[in-house]
Amino acid sequence: MSGTIPAGLLAAVREKRPLVHHITNSVTINDCANITICIGAAPVMAEAPEEVAEMVAAAGALVLNIGTLSAEQVEAMLIAGRRANELGIPVVLDPVGAGATRFRTETARRLLDALDIAVLKGNAGEIGVLAGAGGSVRGVDSCGVAGDLVEAAVECARTTGTVVAMTGEIDVVTDGKRVFLVRNGDPAMDRLSGTGCMAASVTGAFAAVADDYAVSSASALAALGRAGERAAAGARGPYSFRTAFFDELAGLSLDDLSRHARIEER
Amino acid sequence: MSGTIPAGLLAAVREKRPLVHHITNSVTINDCANITICIGAAPVMAEAPEEVAEMVAAAGALVLNIGTLSAEQVEAMLIAGRRANELGIPVVLDPVGAGATRFRTETARRLLDALDIAVLKGNAGEIGVLAGAGGSVRGVDSCGVAGDLVEAAVECARTTGTVVAMTGEIDVVTDGKRVFLVRNGDPAMDRLSGTGCMAASVTGAFAAVADDYAVSSASALAALGRAGERAAAGARGPYSFRTAFFDELAGLSLDDLSRHARIEER
Amino acid sequence: MSGTIPAGLLAAVREKRPLVHHITNSVTINDCANITICIGAAPVMAEAPEEVAEMVAAAGALVLNIGTLSAEQVEAMLIAGRRANELGIPVVLDPVGAGATRFRTETARRLLDALDIAVLKGNAGEIGVLAGAGGSVRGVDSCGVAGDLVEAAVECARTTGTVVAMTGEIDVVTDGKRVFLVRNGDPAMDRLSGTGCMAASVTGAFAAVADDYAVSSASALAALGRAGERAAAGARGPYSFRTAFFDELAGLSLDDLSRHARIEER
Repeated sequence: MSGTIPAGLLAAVREKRPLVHHITNSVTINDCANITICIGAAPVMAEAPEEVAEMVAAAGALVLNIGTLSAEQVEAMLIAGRRANELGIPVVLDPVGAGATRFRTETARRLLDALDIAVLKGNAGEIGVLAGAGGSVRGVDSCGVAGDLVEAAVECARTTGTVVAMTGEIDVVTDGKRVFLVRNGDPAMDRLSGTGCMAASVTGAFAAVADDYAVSSASALAALGRAGERAAAGARGPYSFRTAFFDELAGLSLDDLSRHARIEER
Repeated sequence: MSGTIPAGLLAAVREKRPLVHHITNSVTINDCANITICIGAAPVMAEAPEEVAEMVAAAGALVLNIGTLSAEQVEAMLIAGRRANELGIPVVLDPVGAGATRFRTETARRLLDALDIAVLKGNAGEIGVLAGAGGSVRGVDSCGVAGDLVEAAVECARTTGTVVAMTGEIDVVTDGKRVFLVRNGDPAMDRLSGTGCMAASVTGAFAAVADDYAVSSASALAALGRAGERAAAGARGPYSFRTAFFDELAGLSLDDLSRHARIEER
Repeated sequence: MSGTIPAGLLAAVREKRPLVHHITNSVTINDCANITICIGAAPVMAEAPEEVAEMVAAAGALVLNIGTLSAEQVEAMLIAGRRANELGIPVVLDPVGAGATRFRTETARRLLDALDIAVLKGNAGEIGVLAGAGGSVRGVDSCGVAGDLVEAAVECARTTGTVVAMTGEIDVVTDGKRVFLVRNGDPAMDRLSGTGCMAASVTGAFAAVADDYAVSSASALAALGRAGERAAAGARGPYSFRTAFFDELAGLSLDDLSRHARIEER
């Protein structure tokens, strides 16, 4: 895919500044808010059942993340998700830790069943579990998937009817037909809590300005990965990397992204 | 207003190190804790109904922030707020997102009705909504106010009987009679999640050592804005700005604040 | 104690990468996740009663922190703690703010009574309160303890039957018989929110690869303190210190820790 496509979507995010409504975990909620600002969108976090339907109506995308889920929070996700579906607002689901506990696996499946999810963004273990492809998850970390990563992602996309964005050394994005491999990124991103959650936030921001969620998700991961590459150059450790990562994403030029996005359609 | 006034209050915060009890949102709670330490005070976050009345009794100020409110949290705010009122401890209210949903607007009004709020700190949209002056809010961001900012702030102060601290490019602080315009700050502060919440924390710390909450609030915003100005000088993006912002506030000299505070009484 | 002991334990953490299950406060939860990664372990935060027993079964240690406790969270701590005890997984308790409110003091005592706590990590005020030795706590900060620090720690260890790790200018670690004084660290660590919580996370990671929790706790505090010493050298304020602190812990060499750990058995 030409780099002009992610660059064009990034320009659209910065111009339209969509509101991205998050119902997310308490660990990385601040990272998600700030990364959403850095990409050029506007974050809002709200999970009271009294307000989620009203809040999501003003949003360009809804991001659901089960990283520190509770029964009450899941109910709020369902309320917000149903309203988003009614209004045609794309919903991104990050099934953090699916496979690690039954509660997480079942909640991810329940959200996939009850809602029309536009993009399912997870690591290989989580996607493998939800595809029924033998994924393995410890805590919130992928321990891999039995067999081929691309096949697991395609199978998951077909089973769930969503675009699947499987993050890893090479990100795999697929709608079950097309497959995009995103080769941007840096290993330093794995040594920081929350890069997966941030990927969901940025995926939401891009979905808010797109119709083709496979293209927008691959573009979002390329933009984030490119910022990671630039940030890793001068970092002395995970926290100086973090500082540079947010700085680089905020300052990422359309020209740089256009030239350095590495998205291959397979 | 002479810069010696904010400098004198900053010296008092650092000397007395008041405890600032927060009941606040989960997005910026860490920023609020650290900014409170940086200004020279001591933060505590506690919202269990079992303990808030006891905790607030040891505090110099109570900061209530509805950024990720829940029905349970609002009840805790009412318990803590009533106890603070009984003890004469100033209460700062940050009505985050008032105007964006009915739940937020009604909760802000409910807290204003039920409690004696010393300082209402919000952006122009939030204050405009609470003044009935046609404010507009999307998510947690101000989309401005119909008509004159100063008039909206004064109207809100008169209606609510509080000191209003309306943050923006120029901060407006008023008790309904006097109006202070604070011209410190930098646009980089707007590109970081949580600067509004941090302003409420610092406003609380200053209120804890003052009697005149209009003067203390203008002084708090001048100190925070001055740290922002100094931090912006060398920042390469929002996160290197963030690092410098906390460093600069912690290291802000009384002499620098005295010379560079720009508070105009209008 | 020879520096080869903490260095050996650090090597074991990095090799085994134990999962450290946290049920913790919302203020420093992100710091705890990232410090756990920086020391070489894997964090997971989970507190839904539906999943904590299953999650902890995969963990090498469980860290309980009452910094923003609620009645529901305490129930989850009890479920997770009982399961950890059944499985022989060490439990670290951080009684944040014990002494500041009855709810915190009673909850800390309740957890100590109901669970087999491996390590009780607190500041002097908290440990003094739990030892019945006249500790004093304001908010979450120690205001000291009546009498000798070491005696209070030893008394607390004997009363509770746990290893006590009392942090301060000099950390005191004791199982009631042996006493280790850890002289690593820097005052900059006190000017940052969450260093105490991070100490509990690192103590958990070290406990996961050890049998002798007094030795592992002293080693954990020496490693953290050594990272603080190295970070303080170049810091311009609390947030540049923070960046350097995480970087230095992630990059801490076994050789450096071996040579600079200052653990004295008294």
